[in-house]
Amino acid sequence: MEIIHTISELRSRLKVESLIVFVPTMGSLHAGHIDLMRVARERAGVGGCVIVSIFVNRLQFGPKEDFGKYPRTLSDDCDKCRAARVDVVFAPDESEMYPEPQTYLVEPSEIQHILEGAVRSGHYRGVATVVLKLFNMVQPQVAVFGKKDYQQCRVLDNMARQLNLPVEMLLAETVRADDGLALSSRNGYLSPNERTEAPQLSAALSAIKSALRKGERNFVALESHAQRTLMARGWLPDYIVIRRQSDLLPPSISDRALVVLAAARLGATRLIDNLEVSI
Amino acid sequence: MEIIHTISELRSRLKVESLIVFVPTMGSLHAGHIDLMRVARERAGVGGCVIVSIFVNRLQFGPKEDFGKYPRTLSDDCDKCRAARVDVVFAPDESEMYPEPQTYLVEPSEIQHILEGAVRSGHYRGVATVVLKLFNMVQPQVAVFGKKDYQQCRVLDNMARQLNLPVEMLLAETVRADDGLALSSRNGYLSPNERTEAPQLSAALSAIKSALRKGERNFVALESHAQRTLMARGWLPDYIVIRRQSDLLPPSISDRALVVLAAARLGATRLIDNLEVSI
Repeated sequence: MEIIHTISELRSRLKVESLIVFVPTMGSLHAGHIDLMRVARERAGVGGCVIVSIFVNRLQFGPKEDFGKYPRTLSDDCDKCRAARVDVVFAPDESEMYPEPQTYLVEPSEIQHILEGAVRSGHYRGVATVVLKLFNMVQPQVAVFGKKDYQQCRVLDNMARQLNLPVEMLLAETVRADDGLALSSRNGYLSPNERTEAPQLSAALSAIKSALRKGERNFVALESHAQRTLMARGWLPDYIVIRRQSDLLPPSISDRALVVLAAARLGATRLIDNLEVSI
Repeated sequence: MEIIHTISELRSRLKVESLIVFVPTMGSLHAGHIDLMRVARERAGVGGCVIVSIFVNRLQFGPKEDFGKYPRTLSDDCDKCRAARVDVVFAPDESEMYPEPQTYLVEPSEIQHILEGAVRSGHYRGVATVVLKLFNMVQPQVAVFGKKDYQQCRVLDNMARQLNLPVEMLLAETVRADDGLALSSRNGYLSPNERTEAPQLSAALSAIKSALRKGERNFVALESHAQRTLMARGWLPDYIVIRRQSDLLPPSISDRALVVLAAARLGATRLIDNLEVSI
């Protein structure tokens, strides 16, 4: 496995490749990321090149979010990439990615201001811009993102379509523990008791999913029932909503491809999860 | 020469090419465009592929500008491209370029709001967005733009650098009539008397250039002298300014790469011109 730090080295290394499968990350890799690499490796096959980028992107941190405290664990991360049979790790530093203040930005649609975007102003603009830059550096045929960050997937998938990026967007299913809890670096902050309680979030989503599949169409009732259930168990939900998959706006009567999205605090830890539902 | 109307045809046609030189246009081609094709042909050589896009981009028209009245002369344009030894004309229709409302936009820097941008709100955002889309469709190694639209060149060149586009930006010199008038489709609107007067605009820029080269550094005096001279001859100048080339902001004392930019009305016709000056 090669570890590359500059754009010019990267371009010359990748020039020979005919199938590049790309997994952008901010490092601090956990089992969810490893699964994205597994998906990438499978898609690339023996002849293809799997590349993982590791870059903590200042542009997607809000003014109240602590960019400085985000964990940087490059050496550990590279070990995990190597074990996952990644071919190239691209780990640029700040001056390589942003040699001058970034004044050209990709402005995503309204989707950037709702749900997670409502509490993280400018976050998705920062994500879209850095991903576009990375795509232009790596020029992958395929890029892999995890559905755990569903809104991010949607922002990037819509960006790829609307800007005609020559990239296949591969959206990978969320990896879950046996009890249903979606894997996340935040799970590590949970106390043993909280860890026991945590699967109730995905359980609430599953309950809504089954109700929808059984024909229930009172979305507001389903949402508020789930909220009340979690609150009664000590959670502080930010939102539990049924939206359409395409733009995460409230579904109209004809929408069939739905997704249930939730964010809720359990003690000091904020967990997010989601579940797609086709009705 | 091939004329292609869909993105999928375009991608499969260009897949075999190893050097693609791209000239984006809105059609209604005149001698200035033909010169860009000459530059592109020269850069591509015998083995390379020269492609011209012809698309009237609704996104870059302001609410007060008449998108509907912009001339559409595809058949004539194709004849001119053929004569200029273009290999492929890409002429998508509206539904191919914008199958859904374009909600993902490239937001250029402050440069979009000054000079031409001050009177054409949203214009450069529309230009940047469509050029990025076209780049992603064509995937050229080289793209050619004319310095006649200097601010557009700067917006796009800065975009290419800041978004790390894998494209060499080739900025071609302005083509001028023997008397110095920059070629433009608008020259056709000039009366015979106005046509005789029109070279005074480039003459004013040249006068500023010589003064700068001789060591004059009172920019404001140079600018207002040129303005007064043109006004005395019956022009209505919008601006005649000395700026630095990089971002078109007023130069600081250390800036050496300058450009003089002018826009002025002669009768009913608004002409623009510019001249680079290294001091």
